[in-house]
Amino acid sequence: MIVQNKIAVGIDIGGTNTVLGLVDQHGNILFRDLVKTTDFPDPQNFISVISERIKSLLNSGDLQLEGIGIGAPNGNYFNGTIEFAPNLKWKGIVPLVNIFKEHFDVPVFLTNDANAAAMGEKIYGGAKEMKDFIFITLGTGVGSGIVTNGQLVYGHDGFAGEIGHVIVDFNGRPCGCGRKGCLETYCSAGGIVTTMNELIQQEGIEGKEWTSKSIYEAAMKGDTLAIHTFEITGEILGKALANSVAYTSPEAIFLFGGLAQAGELIFEPTKQFLEDNLLEIYKGKVKLLSSSLPEADAAILGASALVW
Amino acid sequence: MIVQNKIAVGIDIGGTNTVLGLVDQHGNILFRDLVKTTDFPDPQNFISVISERIKSLLNSGDLQLEGIGIGAPNGNYFNGTIEFAPNLKWKGIVPLVNIFKEHFDVPVFLTNDANAAAMGEKIYGGAKEMKDFIFITLGTGVGSGIVTNGQLVYGHDGFAGEIGHVIVDFNGRPCGCGRKGCLETYCSAGGIVTTMNELIQQEGIEGKEWTSKSIYEAAMKGDTLAIHTFEITGEILGKALANSVAYTSPEAIFLFGGLAQAGELIFEPTKQFLEDNLLEIYKGKVKLLSSSLPEADAAILGASALVW
Repeated sequence: MIVQNKIAVGIDIGGTNTVLGLVDQHGNILFRDLVKTTDFPDPQNFISVISERIKSLLNSGDLQLEGIGIGAPNGNYFNGTIEFAPNLKWKGIVPLVNIFKEHFDVPVFLTNDANAAAMGEKIYGGAKEMKDFIFITLGTGVGSGIVTNGQLVYGHDGFAGEIGHVIVDFNGRPCGCGRKGCLETYCSAGGIVTTMNELIQQEGIEGKEWTSKSIYEAAMKGDTLAIHTFEITGEILGKALANSVAYTSPEAIFLFGGLAQAGELIFEPTKQFLEDNLLEIYKGKVKLLSSSLPEADAAILGASALVW
Repeated sequence: MIVQNKIAVGIDIGGTNTVLGLVDQHGNILFRDLVKTTDFPDPQNFISVISERIKSLLNSGDLQLEGIGIGAPNGNYFNGTIEFAPNLKWKGIVPLVNIFKEHFDVPVFLTNDANAAAMGEKIYGGAKEMKDFIFITLGTGVGSGIVTNGQLVYGHDGFAGEIGHVIVDFNGRPCGCGRKGCLETYCSAGGIVTTMNELIQQEGIEGKEWTSKSIYEAAMKGDTLAIHTFEITGEILGKALANSVAYTSPEAIFLFGGLAQAGELIFEPTKQFLEDNLLEIYKGKVKLLSSSLPEADAAILGASALVW
């Protein structure tokens, strides 16, 4: 008798690229592939090509496909649809799961990318033993996945967990969502650039073109404005997370993404303002942790985690 | 064969009074009783007296006791303890469930009063068919219970769902919790009195002693400052609830308690500011509803609902 390796496919659909991988139950990625999302104005055609790639990868080994997990912007778990995703060419509502099921006879799961990453942390990462945690992605945008009672919170409509669009200042910075003062406008890559530019303007110093990366490098070299930018960002993030704790009282909050990789520069002020602003009963109970998912593979791992 | 009525005991422990009732599966309260909490400096003695009362009520009918549910300030579901409740004479950690189990051989459940009321809404009230909703109590304090995936969210430590202590203004009013600007400082009975007094002071009008009830009565008679007080309260509540939706994306938010009984005076502005401040994907999806639990019996019903 031949024992086959049980495999989940993880697919992460991004505005530019779609990455996919074959993942075993321990979180090892056996095979990977990449497709340019922008090459496919038609989702039917996109899924046909992806499916062919997956089938040929499956033939490479003695593998038993258990299911397919997909992370995508505005991915809806209940409907299996991508709905009005601003960063994708496919407009309106795309019945992604149903189209995949025309190609595969296994369960297919879809959710948004941050929810998928939260499940990656639960299945393969630092949240294995946790039933209640919050996962925050700090990148181009700010996303989140909330786990309570061991389950991802999808909410009534499948779109729960948008902590990046919690408003922290109703008179604050304009947000891409059309409102003002969302957490994302302060704690995303673009948000910290805006904060740095504001500080520079206040100081009357001549400006240059900053990126989140160059602010990080300047801070590491001791630039006081760059360090202060991280402090301000950590203050806003820490206070927002202190409020988040009052909702679901998590054991830990995981930070993931570019900004999280700035290490102590962002963790130290965030931790301080989180702890200082917690309601008494929560003080000293909530861990602020760095995600243990490898940056490059988190999207594939997260998507595949939906299957197990 | 005699068919016995299945019964849950619901106990609501308050700072002044403790009420209890025998409740059937349809939410009918068959018998009630009341004990003054303040008469008992010792919780052991308190529970002995309560237990005797329950046993004599049970003897009044052909009743089969299925379990006991208790709502209490700072009640911890996981530990079965009341922990450091500021409004009770019993200091420190009281192992309430264990003491009850010395008197009864049935399951005993404990949680805080707002969580219990949320379960009351789910088992007997307007949330029967709902898997995702938020229940807000607007009274002396502001409490909440959050239900996701059909389950009450207890969080890692059993203390989740403190929306009354979400900070809406970090430089705002001092709160009893030691911090500043908690939702409770604006949307509790005391909060609206403070708002009314602030408006009166701004206008330079001679003050009088207001209560939440007299503000309601003034508003109903057309007093513009009293009406404006409700508008301000609804704006703060509506904006806070718009942020709440970004966490758990509920089907409905239920308002309960004294302030909720002000009807359109509070519902109209709250609904408007909730809807106006929702992230696009949530707009038009979230119902703002009045709790269907009868004010006088909600505490007993909620506590008993923990049993079913």
